[in-house]
Amino acid sequence: MRNVSADTLTQSFLDYMSDDTDERLRFVLTKLATHLHDFVRETDLTHDEWRKGLALLYEAGQISTPERNEFVLFSDVFGLSSLVDMVNSSEEATPSSVLGPFHVRGAPDVPVGGDLKKDNEGAAVVFGGVVKSTDGTPIEGAVLEIWQTAENGLYSGQDEAQPDYNFYACMATKADGRYLFSTVRPAPYTVPDDGPVGEMLHATGRDPWRPSHLHFIITANGHRTLVTEIFPSDDPYLDRDAVFGVREKLIIEYQESSDISALPDDLVIKPTIEAPFFTVGFDFTLSPK
Amino acid sequence: MRNVSADTLTQSFLDYMSDDTDERLRFVLTKLATHLHDFVRETDLTHDEWRKGLALLYEAGQISTPERNEFVLFSDVFGLSSLVDMVNSSEEATPSSVLGPFHVRGAPDVPVGGDLKKDNEGAAVVFGGVVKSTDGTPIEGAVLEIWQTAENGLYSGQDEAQPDYNFYACMATKADGRYLFSTVRPAPYTVPDDGPVGEMLHATGRDPWRPSHLHFIITANGHRTLVTEIFPSDDPYLDRDAVFGVREKLIIEYQESSDISALPDDLVIKPTIEAPFFTVGFDFTLSPK
Repeated sequence: MRNVSADTLTQSFLDYMSDDTDERLRFVLTKLATHLHDFVRETDLTHDEWRKGLALLYEAGQISTPERNEFVLFSDVFGLSSLVDMVNSSEEATPSSVLGPFHVRGAPDVPVGGDLKKDNEGAAVVFGGVVKSTDGTPIEGAVLEIWQTAENGLYSGQDEAQPDYNFYACMATKADGRYLFSTVRPAPYTVPDDGPVGEMLHATGRDPWRPSHLHFIITANGHRTLVTEIFPSDDPYLDRDAVFGVREKLIIEYQESSDISALPDDLVIKPTIEAPFFTVGFDFTLSPK
Repeated sequence: MRNVSADTLTQSFLDYMSDDTDERLRFVLTKLATHLHDFVRETDLTHDEWRKGLALLYEAGQISTPERNEFVLFSDVFGLSSLVDMVNSSEEATPSSVLGPFHVRGAPDVPVGGDLKKDNEGAAVVFGGVVKSTDGTPIEGAVLEIWQTAENGLYSGQDEAQPDYNFYACMATKADGRYLFSTVRPAPYTVPDDGPVGEMLHATGRDPWRPSHLHFIITANGHRTLVTEIFPSDDPYLDRDAVFGVREKLIIEYQESSDISALPDDLVIKPTIEAPFFTVGFDFTLSPK
């Protein structure tokens, strides 16, 4: 189009795509262009603001590495990562929540009842429940990848003082769908705020804090993989998670207890656990494919 | 907010900004978040598509340097750069058009009537007109920065065979507001299509070509700076400029002529010009501040 104007630009963008463009790609790009164009039109974006936005993206590119991806962080703090989780969640299943950047492959296998606390500081937490399908059937052989921070708010990959794979585990459920492990409470921490994302957070008076949480990826034959997080109900940052990961259904109370005899017999640390400790019960529900 | 959902996420994003956030920043971020959230909701964006989009941004960061900014190029091929030009243009002034990545500071001063063609290949083009204000008054001392490709479609910074600042000039108008110079026709060229932007262009069957053009930045006391481009009316790519820079008012006919005597006397190459040559007349209109 020769005489593109603010009114006709979006149509030109669509017209420029060839007829044999993949239908879904055309749909997604059309929606993206439409919203970006509307954004510019509705804000009468200035050249200075446009330059500032592009400068932030350029800086995000310069600061990003395979270990620190500032674009994922932008997506997180804009709520886009959470929104993608939400639109792909089913009502009947456990809600999904952000994967985050600290997942690593190759975590050690730990049997049901196993221990993640080891010699780490902190009161013991006994965490367990059932992995089931949306019809209530327990799922045998569901694999839980579990990871969390130590009491200092750091993942083992961020902390030289922790052994490799500290607080990282893989656990397969047995016929009853049960999982069970002992650990400590994870701690709140801040997302990296020394780059362009931090600049945006500081300029808008936003908090870089995330409430404490355990991460889970749960895979099971015939079911959609669940990526989620579980939050303690008394965390001070539940109402202002920097990455919008909290859902009511993912908040759970840590029950303080001294009744060692009530603990399951297959809990490996039962003979040596010191009271008081905490117990947490949470059942995961997966959607069939 | 503890129970952020797809319906409440946008409101949470707004609520998270502190009350003393700069009003304009809050407005722009609110619009941006609203449109990005709507984009995800309206497309039911999948995790794979989200990952693909983030991977393209990450690659754009890796390929970008101070000399090649893939984010600016994304903005260009999405029409965002042009749209920012459009919403900041006034109806009475000459339309603005994309700056592009080939502007460099420090171009040599050339007096009115001066020559940019020098020993370069190509038929001579005599390009001139008046710089005036929206009320028609000629502007004295307006400074035109002019740059263009050689006949091979390359800017001097891209081409070892060209001297530094070949086809780059700065020219100040005299009391009559006139500018005038001799040059050659610029040539069409492609935007860089070996990175993530190229991946998008190829996937949608789009053309990486830009129609040939001369670039101008015109600054004058008391007026808004004009960044624009002038296109020849017979260019084959006018209807499919990869960066949406063409406006009807910026298209001008190159008139072929052999009448040397009709050329202005202050044209430096008038005594040595070879016929036939081309003449181009274009008046620039600037908005008062």
